[in-house]
Amino acid sequence: MDFLNKKYLFTPGPVPVSPRVLLTQAQPMTHHRLPEFSEVLREIREDLKYLFQTQREVYFFASSGTGAMEAAIVNLFSPGDKVIVVEAGKFGERWRELAETYGLNPVVLKIEWGQAIKPEQVEKALKEHPDAKAVLMQACETSTGVKHPVKEISELTRSKETLLVIDAITALGVYPLPMDEWGLDVVITGSQKALSLPPGLSFIAFSDKALSLAESSKLPKYYFNLAKERKAYTKDTTAFTPAISLLLGLKEMLKRVRSLGLEKIFKHCSALSLACRKGVSALGLEIFPEVPSESLTVVKSPQGLNTGEFLKFLRDKWGILFAGGQDKLKGKIFRITHMGDQSPFDLMVALSALEMGLNLFGIKIPLGASLVSAEEILMEYLKNEGV
Amino acid sequence: MDFLNKKYLFTPGPVPVSPRVLLTQAQPMTHHRLPEFSEVLREIREDLKYLFQTQREVYFFASSGTGAMEAAIVNLFSPGDKVIVVEAGKFGERWRELAETYGLNPVVLKIEWGQAIKPEQVEKALKEHPDAKAVLMQACETSTGVKHPVKEISELTRSKETLLVIDAITALGVYPLPMDEWGLDVVITGSQKALSLPPGLSFIAFSDKALSLAESSKLPKYYFNLAKERKAYTKDTTAFTPAISLLLGLKEMLKRVRSLGLEKIFKHCSALSLACRKGVSALGLEIFPEVPSESLTVVKSPQGLNTGEFLKFLRDKWGILFAGGQDKLKGKIFRITHMGDQSPFDLMVALSALEMGLNLFGIKIPLGASLVSAEEILMEYLKNEGV
Repeated sequence: MDFLNKKYLFTPGPVPVSPRVLLTQAQPMTHHRLPEFSEVLREIREDLKYLFQTQREVYFFASSGTGAMEAAIVNLFSPGDKVIVVEAGKFGERWRELAETYGLNPVVLKIEWGQAIKPEQVEKALKEHPDAKAVLMQACETSTGVKHPVKEISELTRSKETLLVIDAITALGVYPLPMDEWGLDVVITGSQKALSLPPGLSFIAFSDKALSLAESSKLPKYYFNLAKERKAYTKDTTAFTPAISLLLGLKEMLKRVRSLGLEKIFKHCSALSLACRKGVSALGLEIFPEVPSESLTVVKSPQGLNTGEFLKFLRDKWGILFAGGQDKLKGKIFRITHMGDQSPFDLMVALSALEMGLNLFGIKIPLGASLVSAEEILMEYLKNEGV
Repeated sequence: MDFLNKKYLFTPGPVPVSPRVLLTQAQPMTHHRLPEFSEVLREIREDLKYLFQTQREVYFFASSGTGAMEAAIVNLFSPGDKVIVVEAGKFGERWRELAETYGLNPVVLKIEWGQAIKPEQVEKALKEHPDAKAVLMQACETSTGVKHPVKEISELTRSKETLLVIDAITALGVYPLPMDEWGLDVVITGSQKALSLPPGLSFIAFSDKALSLAESSKLPKYYFNLAKERKAYTKDTTAFTPAISLLLGLKEMLKRVRSLGLEKIFKHCSALSLACRKGVSALGLEIFPEVPSESLTVVKSPQGLNTGEFLKFLRDKWGILFAGGQDKLKGKIFRITHMGDQSPFDLMVALSALEMGLNLFGIKIPLGASLVSAEEILMEYLKNEGV
């Protein structure tokens, strides 16, 4: 009977968090300098390596994902350093803004929102700017739903001195990004995405090449300080007070990731995103990004739909939360995530709300079409994997 | 990423409980003899009257619903008393068993499982047994999904000395059963049904006619003792230790019932059950009960389906919990409830799991058909009520 209060979260962060994690976080508060908490940290560090597919250490901060992006900038570079920035949306902009804020010299590769960068564009920039210290880019550009060709670009940078710095906030744990195998130099993520945790933790890992550049970094840093965290790690602790309850949830979640295995998780996100794209297309709607990421489905708003009103209606009346477009995409797209504690059945919730909502808003769609298309994909997945 | 652990509860008790209620119950334990707990009890008693649509007191026990059925028997009757029992399923049987256990003289009206009692059958029994102290029946027979004609039967009993005792465990709060208006003498319910609470509380209200018969009751009773509870109520307490955390959840839930209003809640259950029936029928499946209750949809298992295996598969592999048939209906039906903290979107989960599951089990159904049929009903409901 509490039905009018139910919330169904399909935003690309925060995402649904499982009751098991929420209960883990509701444990009585403990102290981060106790020996048993050092044991928690040791386990987390080991399991993060599995998630990042790396032998390097993974560092974390009590911050949003942007904190780890800032940590990359301030720990790697020095004033005036040239960096190549892939700017294909809101989060590409963020790399540029961070570079500008800290007095770097960004070479911006501006890509139309909705398009993916082409490896040739990076290749050309690297040739023109052999002194660039790094390429800063997203794996998935959350604002447009685009998946950038990280692997292909890593093949361009790994033999050079130029670092490849990947904001994988909505990508790591969604689809393969093996850090060591591909030679990624910096990989960043956040807790409120594929890790299905509440917001509040950011993560960053550095290759040896990145660590060696960091040695000479001259930018000011205090909280986001890699050297301090490295030193604290030798004592199985953190430089500053960690987000204790979030870390307890993280420990639980990382165990789950290990027990399921990354491959199974990638297949899950892949099935949900494919089913969603097929479903949305069956309604006659268009997918916005040129190369869609498995993290979220970004849909072009159909002609005649007041997208703002539509999303507000779904949110306030039905408790269904999709994300709208940001900045220049406001009113032109909406976004449905596949990250978080979501099952194939939750996608049916999203699609049925989409169908019924569009219908009520006077958009002509074939009722049920997205559901059937999604079922066809999900049945295959459930038969082969879920079973 | 915890997706393989998600549970979707569609059983006719227990039902999904809202996070708000769960959090209310997670408050630090308090003591039931404190003045502030008396205030809780006073509020609950007032709000229960609204739910039961009565001016009488509603009593409650820390017990399952069966406890309140036993309370009705032991507080109303004396050894050898004749009672007319409507036995149209598992819960009708329970009335008979209780009557037999306490040495009453039950006149059993046996109805084929799946059929509803006809008022004429009760009329005839009342004529043949004018000395019957009561008619004992269900409002909804949960084992078959049948809705019995309580109103019509109340018109037969209200002018007579014979009491009408209604097990409304899966009916009260689902569809109208106004106790005072219809002259129902005893109404019983439980917490884990329409009230959307965990199991553990039962409720019972008595008309003046019932209270006066209770005065002369000679059956032994200690825990389920109306006189003790009535006395305790005068002191704003309970005779025995109450289920404190459940009562805190109940208080929260009853406030919600009052703020939504019974009419809105009845419309909600009615829309969900209609959508489910239409959906199931669109798959070519048959509804089992002659007169279906809005509390749950009971479906005849299609030819060739191993129902036990099917339900086990849905439960163990997909986390979808439907209920099977009991006793003679085992393997022949399955049951999907509309009680509890469920939205129209949750019904889409149930139906898509049903469709995909049947398909995987080799039952030929038109994929998507139940979803479209349900959407048509739910859209109307959401347009008029949910908005």
